[in-house]
Amino acid sequence: MLGTCLENVRRGAPLIHCITNYVTVNDVANILLACGASPIMADDIQEVEDVTALCAGLNINIGTLNQRTVPAMVAAGKKAAAMGHPVVLDPVGAGASPMRTQSVRRLLHEIPFSVIRGNVSEFKALTAGADTTRGVDAQLTDAVTESGLDAAVAFAKSAAAQLGAVAAITGAIDLVADRNTCYVIRNGRSEMGLVTGTGCQLSGLTAAFLAANPGNTLEAAAAAVASMGLAGEIGWANMAPTDGSATYRNRIIDAIYHLDGSTLDKGANYELK
Amino acid sequence: MLGTCLENVRRGAPLIHCITNYVTVNDVANILLACGASPIMADDIQEVEDVTALCAGLNINIGTLNQRTVPAMVAAGKKAAAMGHPVVLDPVGAGASPMRTQSVRRLLHEIPFSVIRGNVSEFKALTAGADTTRGVDAQLTDAVTESGLDAAVAFAKSAAAQLGAVAAITGAIDLVADRNTCYVIRNGRSEMGLVTGTGCQLSGLTAAFLAANPGNTLEAAAAAVASMGLAGEIGWANMAPTDGSATYRNRIIDAIYHLDGSTLDKGANYELK
Amino acid sequence: MLGTCLENVRRGAPLIHCITNYVTVNDVANILLACGASPIMADDIQEVEDVTALCAGLNINIGTLNQRTVPAMVAAGKKAAAMGHPVVLDPVGAGASPMRTQSVRRLLHEIPFSVIRGNVSEFKALTAGADTTRGVDAQLTDAVTESGLDAAVAFAKSAAAQLGAVAAITGAIDLVADRNTCYVIRNGRSEMGLVTGTGCQLSGLTAAFLAANPGNTLEAAAAAVASMGLAGEIGWANMAPTDGSATYRNRIIDAIYHLDGSTLDKGANYELK
Repeated sequence: MLGTCLENVRRGAPLIHCITNYVTVNDVANILLACGASPIMADDIQEVEDVTALCAGLNINIGTLNQRTVPAMVAAGKKAAAMGHPVVLDPVGAGASPMRTQSVRRLLHEIPFSVIRGNVSEFKALTAGADTTRGVDAQLTDAVTESGLDAAVAFAKSAAAQLGAVAAITGAIDLVADRNTCYVIRNGRSEMGLVTGTGCQLSGLTAAFLAANPGNTLEAAAAAVASMGLAGEIGWANMAPTDGSATYRNRIIDAIYHLDGSTLDKGANYELK
Repeated sequence: MLGTCLENVRRGAPLIHCITNYVTVNDVANILLACGASPIMADDIQEVEDVTALCAGLNINIGTLNQRTVPAMVAAGKKAAAMGHPVVLDPVGAGASPMRTQSVRRLLHEIPFSVIRGNVSEFKALTAGADTTRGVDAQLTDAVTESGLDAAVAFAKSAAAQLGAVAAITGAIDLVADRNTCYVIRNGRSEMGLVTGTGCQLSGLTAAFLAANPGNTLEAAAAAVASMGLAGEIGWANMAPTDGSATYRNRIIDAIYHLDGSTLDKGANYELK
Repeated sequence: MLGTCLENVRRGAPLIHCITNYVTVNDVANILLACGASPIMADDIQEVEDVTALCAGLNINIGTLNQRTVPAMVAAGKKAAAMGHPVVLDPVGAGASPMRTQSVRRLLHEIPFSVIRGNVSEFKALTAGADTTRGVDAQLTDAVTESGLDAAVAFAKSAAAQLGAVAAITGAIDLVADRNTCYVIRNGRSEMGLVTGTGCQLSGLTAAFLAANPGNTLEAAAAAVASMGLAGEIGWANMAPTDGSATYRNRIIDAIYHLDGSTLDKGANYELK
């Protein structure tokens, strides 16, 4: 059950090493605390292996990558993998520049990721390599819709197989797939796209859910995705008329803070394909 | 009309490349989303030209400049200018150190900025070069007041002429001037100064307004300034008695989220001089 | 009186130079503004001495230290000390990696800190040098409890003597000690640990309180600690049922914004040992 995956996070309180962008790092730290995990951020190559060794999971996010941090991501990822820790990749803006695309390729080549969490455009850049990305949002033509669902599910499974990791492709409909099975998750609200970093936060959550649910990668990732979407719904329901996107940002994290396993099980709206 | 400038942002949804400080970057991203634009942050010299080429405008903010990012700012600014994109400069703390002052001079020398957005102290450092700055806030002696308004307007026009860019000088009274015309804007609240980054957010907004209103730089910049000030007023009106500066921060962005063209036209309080 | 220390911050409005981590830097800036001080963030070695010379106090936080910023911390700290400014150290995660531990040792060797603000685990790493740290939170076995209070007070005094600085050791019970006297402060709530950066914010506040209360280091540091704890209590009292950790983050800063000297004097719960 997805709810059990969440309860395991609150029970295990995993420490998660994040090498993430400076735009949304505060929200990533706060949502990790809100779900019952603990964050530690460290990105210097002199310490990332030591830090990741203390942790139970690693979250790599390339949102503001630079020439100093990419080698640190590689070193941390290899160390975490060697220790058997789950490693999540958030390929923010993959395809937006050759540097991003090449850095992601390098990361994929050197690190056996457990889960990759991105939007359709980013996954296309990872798997096909010729796309450009519209900022950190999926291109409109890349939206996952009901009418294109079967093709999108097939793409998610194929991406998972090609990349050797669970593919968590988020958008209007969220897909969490390995090569055989795909969770199709219909939680969340479109207004979440007006808050920067909801994707980054989800990647952090995913690392925590994986760390607390060893051997159960696909379900744990689906539970993280459903939790974030449900928090988006609950947070929106708690909005007053004059509240806007900044208050919504807080309401989403507040909802994660209050979320428990049974609420997640009741609210998660998904099917397996 | 200023309101039309805002509606053009919501309609055009420009992607804005920000090379900005790590203190307020999250708020800059969120206010860009709140006004209908999209942000992308990237500061490594290996990718800034590629990223800015995907965008419709560039926002350079030196708040936490370093030796790695200044060359990236120059490269991005030249590329954006070559592509005809508007480029905004926020010279945070210009005058506070020789490094800041010299970096700003270099940026001004190499990049044809569309708009420079700062406080009086920063503009004095840019135009005269011998001042020191009190942090990121204007020195008290540099406040624009009703009694000194004519001199301030003359200074704004002269700064615009000297710097070859629209000068957006914000404070108790906001001035947005080219060499001939100055918008004198009386929106906003003094409490906005107790929220870090309202100036940085305005610079981000300005880049979005310019990108969505090509050929209309002066009015678009004035519309951004008036929007921010009006959001400060609306946000304050939505404060409960126990709310303080942190809640105000959210209320300002919430107000931008809800702001539409007709509300801006009704609420904007300005005259031309 | 502690309240007088706070009133002195609001009256003096000290400018505080922060070299701090990018996770919580925005909150540090906002809480400095909320208490009546002003922040300036600058971390490039080419400017840190110039910037710190303009300020009244310096706050060094190693939360996301790197090879570029550690030398800048040293340079700024030496300059601030040479000018007689108070310098605060927040040794985030000391013990979590050799790089952190060695960097802290270097900072302690080169800079005469006024106050060091951390948790028990970090202080153990500073004084004994063989511990590991669980992220940025104190290890459970290191919690300061009523039953272990006498030993903890003795440790705080001994740490202060060994490190040559006031030791502000925060946790369930907060201890602020020089070699002879220890403030035992029982303000705050455990839920503050679910908001990232409440410790970092306190370190920033401490620098402001020191700068505004020269020659009164111990009491000023205690006033900062009690203010933060009391803000945590007041902020919690202002929470609605659906509010969670993200809203709490705002409520704490809001409470600092509204806090005055007499409220602090009435609400501070401490004894001297």
